[in-house]
Amino acid sequence: ALMSCLNEGDEIIIPEPFYANYNGFSQQAGIIVKPIRSSIDTGFALPTVEEFEKIITSKTKGIMICNPGNPTGYLYSREELESLKELVLKYNLFLFSDEVYREFCYDGAQYVSVMHLIEGIEEHVVLLDSISKRYSACGARIGALISKNKKLMEIAMKFAQARLSPPTFGQLAAEAGIDTPDSYFKEVNAEYTKRRNLVVEALNDIPGVFCPKPKGAFYCMARLPIDDADRFCQWLLESFEHEGETVMLAPATGFYSTQGAGMDEVRIAYVLKESDLEKAMLCLKKALMVYPGRTS
Amino acid sequence: ALMSCLNEGDEIIIPEPFYANYNGFSQQAGIIVKPIRSSIDTGFALPTVEEFEKIITSKTKGIMICNPGNPTGYLYSREELESLKELVLKYNLFLFSDEVYREFCYDGAQYVSVMHLIEGIEEHVVLLDSISKRYSACGARIGALISKNKKLMEIAMKFAQARLSPPTFGQLAAEAGIDTPDSYFKEVNAEYTKRRNLVVEALNDIPGVFCPKPKGAFYCMARLPIDDADRFCQWLLESFEHEGETVMLAPATGFYSTQGAGMDEVRIAYVLKESDLEKAMLCLKKALMVYPGRTS
Repeated sequence: ALMSCLNEGDEIIIPEPFYANYNGFSQQAGIIVKPIRSSIDTGFALPTVEEFEKIITSKTKGIMICNPGNPTGYLYSREELESLKELVLKYNLFLFSDEVYREFCYDGAQYVSVMHLIEGIEEHVVLLDSISKRYSACGARIGALISKNKKLMEIAMKFAQARLSPPTFGQLAAEAGIDTPDSYFKEVNAEYTKRRNLVVEALNDIPGVFCPKPKGAFYCMARLPIDDADRFCQWLLESFEHEGETVMLAPATGFYSTQGAGMDEVRIAYVLKESDLEKAMLCLKKALMVYPGRTS
Repeated sequence: ALMSCLNEGDEIIIPEPFYANYNGFSQQAGIIVKPIRSSIDTGFALPTVEEFEKIITSKTKGIMICNPGNPTGYLYSREELESLKELVLKYNLFLFSDEVYREFCYDGAQYVSVMHLIEGIEEHVVLLDSISKRYSACGARIGALISKNKKLMEIAMKFAQARLSPPTFGQLAAEAGIDTPDSYFKEVNAEYTKRRNLVVEALNDIPGVFCPKPKGAFYCMARLPIDDADRFCQWLLESFEHEGETVMLAPATGFYSTQGAGMDEVRIAYVLKESDLEKAMLCLKKALMVYPGRTS
């Protein structure tokens, strides 16, 4: 998508924290990522139009979002997406929307895709999709780039032809996946809602910890009373145990493009069964009680 | 491999005709392809050291070969590979060798890999492999980049990490493929030898046609008495039939980087069973008798 839409040296704005691989993809395409900061205090709501405008330059060619977000779990509202539409039109930008977690929305929250807002920005919108999360089939390596922009699709086809084809076995599995009954998604949603509630409540019950309640994906970001998330996560794996077990967290620093940001935040993926998550939260609580780099 | 070893604007020398996707891969990496011409008259033997030296500049960072070659079927001799080794050492170049057809060598010809010559050029050699041809599993999308250069492998790992993983189903099939008995390869080789002999002999029996006998892969290149290979191949599909059938050939122009080269050459893949190949050769002979753009 980036190589099809942008040229080398072009800039793309991405609300941070964001999925770390966007850095790698941009690097490979010679594109410069300009992060725009969202904060754990607002649950990682979209920055305002004015904040975006502060970093838009003549080289800005696109905005990239992940909705619902990895690592934040934040689900953008219709109003937030409308503000992006305004920017996209005003500055003639591409809007890249990674919506691979769209089946994972909770509390009856309405999922609004960029495709729901496309009228008037048909040439600007690029939807990125994958079967990885929907069918729990990450290893299949089947995704999609979707746009109404015909010229863009022609260019993307050139890249597709150079790659020859997506993996055949994955294509077969993906095609079979379409027949997945709705009941599967309902069950998965109910299960993940329980997992989310368990983790977010347990986190907020730990003294010094703050975790906004995400409405989508299967991640949450937590602020911990720690000096350095990378050090803490490493310490958990190498130097801590509670009843012979520990927890593995993703330091949030890797999801920020700004140096030094996210030092006291971690991402937790609630992809284990409830009883394991309960043990993990207890383990984290015990760890924070004895971690040498505790700050409060 | 290209992105791991070269920087944007660097040059790579590739004997032409070559596998057309090398153009796309280079384009994506911002790398400039400098073709060096090999000729159908010598069966597409490697150009001499002196010819390579004529186009080596301070920006030349690598040489890429395909051995046995697509589209030529040419199998490089030990002497030819030794001459590449000399160049690689003298000008401090990477040597990329695409050897995906290495099981397809005929007439008892000895297959020499760049890995057989690696002493002294351990840091320069990059072997590119795939299960696509070996196990007739193109759709699995499993390949390998192999080098003794540790720094290069570290960089390649960064790209691999950004891509997350090769397709899982393909990995399983590839692993299972290792147990393929030798008898499979012997049978395949015997079958392809017969197909090659049939096609090459039939081609050279057609007046005005010349086809060198390739020692590897499953392609041959033929010079035809035609004005324009693209036009001829299109005409075959759209305007010609013999007993309700036609033949599909690959115009050689797509395998040359030099504009206008390969206008009277086509690539034939002898990947059908003998009876079909016989019909195809007869069909081609009939077509050449009535093609309006015939030149001799």
